Amino acid sequence: MTSADPTAPFRVAVVGTGLIGTSVALAASRVGCVVTGWDQDVVTAERAAARGGFSASTGLDEAVADADLVVVATPIPTIPALVARALASAPRAVVTDAGSIKTHLVAAVARSTDDETFTRYVPGHPMGGSERSGPDHASASVLDGIVWVITPTPRSAAAMVDRLETWVTRIGASPVRMAPERHDRLVAFVSHLPQVASTALMALAATEEADEPEILLLAAGGFRDLTRLASSNPVLWSDILLANGEQIAGAIDLYVRRLLELRDRIQASDGAAVKRTFEIAKQARLSLAAKPKVRAGVAVISIPIPDQPGALASLTSGLAEGSVNIEDLQIVHSPEGGRGTVHLTVVIGHAESATRVLAAHGFDPTRIA
Amino acid sequence: MTSADPTAPFRVAVVGTGLIGTSVALAASRVGCVVTGWDQDVVTAERAAARGGFSASTGLDEAVADADLVVVATPIPTIPALVARALASAPRAVVTDAGSIKTHLVAAVARSTDDETFTRYVPGHPMGGSERSGPDHASASVLDGIVWVITPTPRSAAAMVDRLETWVTRIGASPVRMAPERHDRLVAFVSHLPQVASTALMALAATEEADEPEILLLAAGGFRDLTRLASSNPVLWSDILLANGEQIAGAIDLYVRRLLELRDRIQASDGAAVKRTFEIAKQARLSLAAKPKVRAGVAVISIPIPDQPGALASLTSGLAEGSVNIEDLQIVHSPEGGRGTVHLTVVIGHAESATRVLAAHGFDPTRIA
Repeated sequence: MTSADPTAPFRVAVVGTGLIGTSVALAASRVGCVVTGWDQDVVTAERAAARGGFSASTGLDEAVADADLVVVATPIPTIPALVARALASAPRAVVTDAGSIKTHLVAAVARSTDDETFTRYVPGHPMGGSERSGPDHASASVLDGIVWVITPTPRSAAAMVDRLETWVTRIGASPVRMAPERHDRLVAFVSHLPQVASTALMALAATEEADEPEILLLAAGGFRDLTRLASSNPVLWSDILLANGEQIAGAIDLYVRRLLELRDRIQASDGAAVKRTFEIAKQARLSLAAKPKVRAGVAVISIPIPDQPGALASLTSGLAEGSVNIEDLQIVHSPEGGRGTVHLTVVIGHAESATRVLAAHGFDPTRIA
Repeated sequence: MTSADPTAPFRVAVVGTGLIGTSVALAASRVGCVVTGWDQDVVTAERAAARGGFSASTGLDEAVADADLVVVATPIPTIPALVARALASAPRAVVTDAGSIKTHLVAAVARSTDDETFTRYVPGHPMGGSERSGPDHASASVLDGIVWVITPTPRSAAAMVDRLETWVTRIGASPVRMAPERHDRLVAFVSHLPQVASTALMALAATEEADEPEILLLAAGGFRDLTRLASSNPVLWSDILLANGEQIAGAIDLYVRRLLELRDRIQASDGAAVKRTFEIAKQARLSLAAKPKVRAGVAVISIPIPDQPGALASLTSGLAEGSVNIEDLQIVHSPEGGRGTVHLTVVIGHAESATRVLAAHGFDPTRIA
């Protein structure tokens, strides 16, 4: 069974049945794949299989033996050994993983497998998830319309890359192909650097608070926005940052250079230069908000909210009556707080009906992405 | 008329009838003050007075002449001259302002007024606002329960400070007293630095995007959170940062030091040290979310949301039936997106009924602040 017939049944093995692995299993079985799951923790594997549509195997080798495709969805430190073992035990399969960094994993897998076998490893990174974890919170919808980055190594076989991309499309995600190094450089800027920036800001404010207990009285919505990520999982993030050390160090250096430039312009009282930096950033942020591909498959609608009780209830219940599911809802405030505008995210297919329903309820919706 | 009788009518003049000035006028007239407004732009002053409860004056001197208290709520560059003129034209009034930095303004006012007159200047900073501007969007509720920082100079007369604080309390805000230098140092960390961090990150990503158009495909919710502030007003912010140049430069330096420390630990593969920084920041962020005084007068309730259509509608319409007004509502996601938990902000007086109503609708609310 190969990508030559993308509609034919297809055997998929999932290694690690946490939130991502189980979501992959559910999405694959939804489109007719025959799916087997394995987890180091037998109870987790059984809870995953109880979600339906696939079976749990008690042996890793046995789980992957007949697979056309294996997805390793475990924590970063465990990925290389599990990928190598899956490559060895599944002689016909393309083996991919869901790790959030790539170069480091590619090198580790290359070290623990032979050259021929290595051609069947095609690393990847599905850009989806949930703040919840474990198989009970998995859902095929976690993967609907997401960007699934595929990062072939120079030695990945073309047929294996094709098979993976065809299957990713088939289960409802959008494959985007790039080299592992490029993936790691890009996520260093848009995923790892924001995390570092947030954590460093919160750690600094915590030190200041020790001297100035009133400091957080003066913290408004902007501070909350910037520090929300700082509550992320320390173990997970220290693994990610160390594994992408070179790229993240480079991104931090460029960021520090920007901060110091801005500091120098402020100290030189060069208002025109400060204003120019702010204008560039503002323009880029507005065009980010307007980009339809910020997250694949969703639309963003901006709605001014009148300052009166029940306004938000009227908005959400109008949407519920119209059977529009809310993917995300944010009340957008100024840096200094106060009421304002709702940014509503819905799946693209619901954008038109959402706009219609909102207008019928007296709102003034504008699609902004 | 002095603070000795806080319930007596009280003459208030508002200089600058934009969003903050008009909100102050509405809040003051709501509690029985006699209010006059003036704006450089006659049309703005008339639109403000059309909101009801106070009169617009065509002359600044005439507007303030009989006032017990004058609030100057104009852009930073215009504040010193207007404060000096109000002090000269309102011989009995305490004169305050609403500028978001203080030391710079205090020095400028001191230069343009005599020593005796200067004792009636008591600078301040109401920590409220809206992303909207102009008198049409003003509301007394903009000031309800907010922290209003009062920053007396060493030469402010005690009676004037008392009069201002008594009045701030009377219109429904919470006065917090501190020295101007301390205010500027604290806002540098929790307001100005987050703005600089956000703008620098967005400007950097915009430069990277020029080379790597696909970079924003990989940007998830964390990047959006961190760059939301970057769409703030460039003119307003360049004025603020230049006026608080010394403090913000110091805060940037400390922030850069934190970033470089983290970079060094990552490059040294010192996972334990990276994890420790993340743990400190996580702990501080969680305790920030739990602090009842993050914003005065409000409570925050955390509610897990089932992954099904209409769940949010059931939540908001339940609150509307219970006459609970929603101050803020946030769907809290993991860095990688997905559904999750709602953080609901309501005024403190509504916290209990909100919890009761939510439980009655099958939700599991927990008050976290």
